[in-house]
Amino acid sequence: MQLFYHPDLSPLQQSVIFDAVESQHIVRVLRKKVGEEIEVTNGNGDWFNCRITQAQNKKCQIEVIAHQAFAKQHDYYLHMLVSPTKNNDRFEWFLEKATEIGVDEITPILTENSERKRIKLERYQKIVLSAMKQSLQYHLPKLNDLTLFKDVLSIEADQKWIAHCHEDEKREALFRKIKPNQNYVLFIGPEGDFSLNEVELALQHQFGAVSLGKNRLRTETAAISACHSVSIKNTYSDA
Amino acid sequence: MQLFYHPDLSPLQQSVIFDAVESQHIVRVLRKKVGEEIEVTNGNGDWFNCRITQAQNKKCQIEVIAHQAFAKQHDYYLHMLVSPTKNNDRFEWFLEKATEIGVDEITPILTENSERKRIKLERYQKIVLSAMKQSLQYHLPKLNDLTLFKDVLSIEADQKWIAHCHEDEKREALFRKIKPNQNYVLFIGPEGDFSLNEVELALQHQFGAVSLGKNRLRTETAAISACHSVSIKNTYSDA
Repeated sequence: MQLFYHPDLSPLQQSVIFDAVESQHIVRVLRKKVGEEIEVTNGNGDWFNCRITQAQNKKCQIEVIAHQAFAKQHDYYLHMLVSPTKNNDRFEWFLEKATEIGVDEITPILTENSERKRIKLERYQKIVLSAMKQSLQYHLPKLNDLTLFKDVLSIEADQKWIAHCHEDEKREALFRKIKPNQNYVLFIGPEGDFSLNEVELALQHQFGAVSLGKNRLRTETAAISACHSVSIKNTYSDA
Repeated sequence: MQLFYHPDLSPLQQSVIFDAVESQHIVRVLRKKVGEEIEVTNGNGDWFNCRITQAQNKKCQIEVIAHQAFAKQHDYYLHMLVSPTKNNDRFEWFLEKATEIGVDEITPILTENSERKRIKLERYQKIVLSAMKQSLQYHLPKLNDLTLFKDVLSIEADQKWIAHCHEDEKREALFRKIKPNQNYVLFIGPEGDFSLNEVELALQHQFGAVSLGKNRLRTETAAISACHSVSIKNTYSDA
């Protein structure tokens, strides 16, 4: 099954035109013709069966012939604040895997020790979209632009954590802290970890310090493990 | 800290010579000289502080001056039987992440639907070794050569599972099935899943059918999630 994506499609807006790139893909590459049907999601939980009403090279128009609303696969909201890795591939892996496993919002953050200071947001968005489609989900995680560490400190959530590796007896295991069915925000630092100053700032803003187990994990492994921990604790809250 | 690896070093064998490639790396690239100290592991839980006694381009010899034995980070034995992915990067990513998170043995398996029929064992071994060093572990997961599905069916273990995606009411969630501190063997299939025949064969050989959650996961994501589930269930057996 090939699933297409158009953010503007909704139960209220039943006819849309794909942009030039996607139109070209559908009409020139896949050779779809007027009258043929394709499946489309708006990334907001809606699945549509659509009929092609115009098939020009740069203008493919569709109209809805059937609609189904899907609930999210999980009953929580997870917002990951992750410093992009020096090696860009590693961050892209995180984006793909987090989307497959379950995440709702991702904000790449710029910290004191972040070595990567620029990101390719458009490319990242394609990766997240493709992972959503591949894993047969109809909810697209929200991906924000690179944001300064200090500018996300005031985010509101039921549970807020910062994972770091400094010696600190007060750190608790993330898995033990997760209460099911909540809004979570979690900081994952860069290769050089958060600075002590950043950890202190986060604590002042009601973030709890957490650890992710005994093994030293790379940034992207830590971030994926955390997404999986949240998923497991919510799926098997009785376990 | 740079950690070197020599499989023959042991509390009984206190002097070894690195092979030509590693010797060249130590002597020519890192410019280590006779009398300098390096840290070495044998991948079997032992850490050694060693002194260089010969520093020739293709023959670097060391002798032990201090030794410490490390227990494994986890109290279980996890053997993953995973079909290599069509895209080799994805399998290599699994090798790295599984080593970071915790795995004891990996056997790439050739199944009916496996698209990749050859692997680069030597390259895989380097990835596992590098991930072990990077995550500061002293136990090297055992990596086996590509093996036919039918040739691993008789493996003995406390808990044996096959994860598949066919409709089957008898499948249970892996996370619920894991009992702590055991020997586990787990099959993860290729992109096209195990065939029904293979699933049947596994069931006949006392493998239990398991699922890995609601989302459709790629092979490598499924394999990593499974390693992480085993780790979590063992770390937080009271959770």
